Amino acid sequence: MFVNRMPRYEILSPDAMNVLDAGWRRLMTEVGVEFASERAVRLFRDAGQKADGSLVRLDPDFVLEQVAKAPREFDVRARNPERSLHIGGDHMSFGAVYGPPFVREGEVRREATMNDFRDFARLAQSSGTLDSAGGVVCEPNDAPLDSRHLDMTYALQTLTDRVYMGNVVSGENARDTLAMSAILFGGREAIEETPVTISLINCNSPLRWDDRMLDAQFEYSAAGQPVVLTPFLLMGAMSPVTIPSALVQQITEALAGIALSQLIRPGCPVIFGSFLSNIDMQSGSPCFGTPESATGLLCTGQIARHFGLPFRSGGALTSSQVPDAQAAYEGLMTMLPTFLAGTNWVMHAAGWLEGGLVASYEKFIIDLQILEMLQQEFTPLEIDEASLAFGAHEEVGQGGHFLGAAHTMERFRTCFYRPFLSSSQNYERWMKGGAADTAARAAEIARKRLAEYEPPPLDTAVEAELADYVARRRAELGD
Amino acid sequence: MFVNRMPRYEILSPDAMNVLDAGWRRLMTEVGVEFASERAVRLFRDAGQKADGSLVRLDPDFVLEQVAKAPREFDVRARNPERSLHIGGDHMSFGAVYGPPFVREGEVRREATMNDFRDFARLAQSSGTLDSAGGVVCEPNDAPLDSRHLDMTYALQTLTDRVYMGNVVSGENARDTLAMSAILFGGREAIEETPVTISLINCNSPLRWDDRMLDAQFEYSAAGQPVVLTPFLLMGAMSPVTIPSALVQQITEALAGIALSQLIRPGCPVIFGSFLSNIDMQSGSPCFGTPESATGLLCTGQIARHFGLPFRSGGALTSSQVPDAQAAYEGLMTMLPTFLAGTNWVMHAAGWLEGGLVASYEKFIIDLQILEMLQQEFTPLEIDEASLAFGAHEEVGQGGHFLGAAHTMERFRTCFYRPFLSSSQNYERWMKGGAADTAARAAEIARKRLAEYEPPPLDTAVEAELADYVARRRAELGD
Repeated sequence: MFVNRMPRYEILSPDAMNVLDAGWRRLMTEVGVEFASERAVRLFRDAGQKADGSLVRLDPDFVLEQVAKAPREFDVRARNPERSLHIGGDHMSFGAVYGPPFVREGEVRREATMNDFRDFARLAQSSGTLDSAGGVVCEPNDAPLDSRHLDMTYALQTLTDRVYMGNVVSGENARDTLAMSAILFGGREAIEETPVTISLINCNSPLRWDDRMLDAQFEYSAAGQPVVLTPFLLMGAMSPVTIPSALVQQITEALAGIALSQLIRPGCPVIFGSFLSNIDMQSGSPCFGTPESATGLLCTGQIARHFGLPFRSGGALTSSQVPDAQAAYEGLMTMLPTFLAGTNWVMHAAGWLEGGLVASYEKFIIDLQILEMLQQEFTPLEIDEASLAFGAHEEVGQGGHFLGAAHTMERFRTCFYRPFLSSSQNYERWMKGGAADTAARAAEIARKRLAEYEPPPLDTAVEAELADYVARRRAELGD
Repeated sequence: MFVNRMPRYEILSPDAMNVLDAGWRRLMTEVGVEFASERAVRLFRDAGQKADGSLVRLDPDFVLEQVAKAPREFDVRARNPERSLHIGGDHMSFGAVYGPPFVREGEVRREATMNDFRDFARLAQSSGTLDSAGGVVCEPNDAPLDSRHLDMTYALQTLTDRVYMGNVVSGENARDTLAMSAILFGGREAIEETPVTISLINCNSPLRWDDRMLDAQFEYSAAGQPVVLTPFLLMGAMSPVTIPSALVQQITEALAGIALSQLIRPGCPVIFGSFLSNIDMQSGSPCFGTPESATGLLCTGQIARHFGLPFRSGGALTSSQVPDAQAAYEGLMTMLPTFLAGTNWVMHAAGWLEGGLVASYEKFIIDLQILEMLQQEFTPLEIDEASLAFGAHEEVGQGGHFLGAAHTMERFRTCFYRPFLSSSQNYERWMKGGAADTAARAAEIARKRLAEYEPPPLDTAVEAELADYVARRRAELGD
């Protein structure tokens, strides 16, 4: 997996961090956080915290004591051991887009299906750089609603050999994910020893954690599976319109959720989540890849490290309706800060289009190209005497070229990163080859990868047990 | 103008810098630099340096003594005082693409004309963010070759009120640029007092400065006009295939050129130039927006600061043939490091396409959009008690929204950067509006800006004197 050994780009001064620290302490104490779950409120009460109905006003020092119980770094097992992940420190993991109800393929935009879900899982599996297909790589609208989570989990478990995300629609769905994970990884005890799935728990921002998400969190935290506690902040709608106020709110919401996880099971792994952008104040539309979101992302990394927590942020986000120039620049406006901040768990790293409403086949491939380039760029340069290639300069001298130099001949195959999607063909050759733009070439690559896809090997008994579980539970759920 | 008060992103350790320092000293001493100009060699000889024909082996300490004479920062006057520039420190200036023989407009790619040149100058003038139309914004192939520089300079002087670049094809062309600048700015003495133009002197890398470029450098440096001494390095062709070796070569070439400028006129302003990317080792094609070029750019900024010199690098470079996703991600892969490195003089910031062979109207607008976003992103965040908007949280509480909060209502017009090109329209509205992608919207914006363009006011007597000069010199040149 990718380890980012380049420097972090930090933009918050100690003074600024102090202001933010005072801010979240005040917000946590004076305004408080709502937990729409009796179980959650009871845990806080039992720990000596003040609750007024579902509204909890937490003592900031108590919160920090809980946060300190969470591991700074932890492992997550994949069924292919080479694909297991380490979350935290300089390690970065990348998952596909999460949640879109629609897909786009060329000029066609339509409701996503289970076949799309499987195809995106296959594309994730065939990628060398993506660590996870994520969870809801698209919302399979043709699958029965109550048992859809079984189909999705089964697809992620069988079509990929990588870490997958757990279903969070309800506590029941979370229990199904855990049961299926226990089948795949050799029992509940095994998955409690080293976690095997990561789950996204979103805050209903501002300052409110909802019951269904909390029910899922209870299941996952109790089982020692990491949860990503994520304030969902589109500034102007779910938070005030200044970045500092959004950061303070983000800290308050995330730390409150993390404190809960540590009351559920002390020491269980958590990830400080961030989903931070802004709306267009004239239309109310969500905007992505904005300067404000990039700034927020850089700050978020520094804040998460301040609290000693791994963090989630970033992705190749865009508002663009098609995989065009805007889709690319907005995506990179988020992905480059994602690397500068050293984000540990990156969701939406491939395929996100149209504000997250659409999973795009072309954008998926474009994003993988960008991801590969960034991994290359964020690999430290080795500078030593040998790297200066003095002999090549002696050989070539003045005004010549290095194409045939001995130093070049020894290294020409591997000296530079070679893109699989970008074209540097000259105009005549490019025209002769059909003058395909980047989106068209990406579509062709997606088709080729799907045609060549081979499922990763899986013990047939395990696969049958998983299929049985899905069938039995589907029947119970009445689908 | 834009001042980048954000931190620099520095990736070279002191050890690495020492290795590079030892490297250029050795290259300068043992391999040397060729100056294809008797005048240049004589200046070095007179200063006690060793020359073998046109090959000069300079004492590194002598070079550093010369470099130390160059100003760390300096001003450049524009005829509109509000558009004058400060070069160096945290200041960043942005110029349009330089040099393309072709233009692209939608599906049409054709030879550039003088009309294109004027239109790109107009687009630069109508932009709020671009500090300069540059110099050869495209190569006007329909204008007579010998007098073309007069038409270009006249267009830059009359259609824009910003800093323009000087012609460098020959010493004679440089003299014409200086004479026309003297007309515009009130005489030779005035332009020597504060420079009014910046000129690009490219090295014929590796390690060779050619006569025509040097002739131009002699004119400009003698007149106290800044020159950008730029090693032209496509790794694999003009330099070895390792980034450290390219950096050492870049230092050697640039410092040798800068030393010459200080012998021509001690204290004259210079800019440490960098044009650093790599070729595709299979096809030999130049590649842009590569991870290697981004890494090289970050190092270059640090190196220029190490020598106390303002520097030029970056731009919105791409190999893409059309203004598509690749054009955008490669452009931003260069432009974001351009900001991280705090580049002082940025050429090719708008319009570059197809490896610099094409000036694209659509890409010009796309790049201006990216430039605006980056200027916003690289503006420091103010974090104080007031910015935390605590009152808004008290007003909204849990689970509501901030759209109507008093804090929001006071700030909604200016709180977020609002893009002029990017679309966050929802799908239905976007479809109804014609479903234009980013390139199509950019084309429309370019057309609109050209239709609405108004030339900046210019004293009619000065304009007539410039026109007379052009007519007289054209006749002398026999065109």
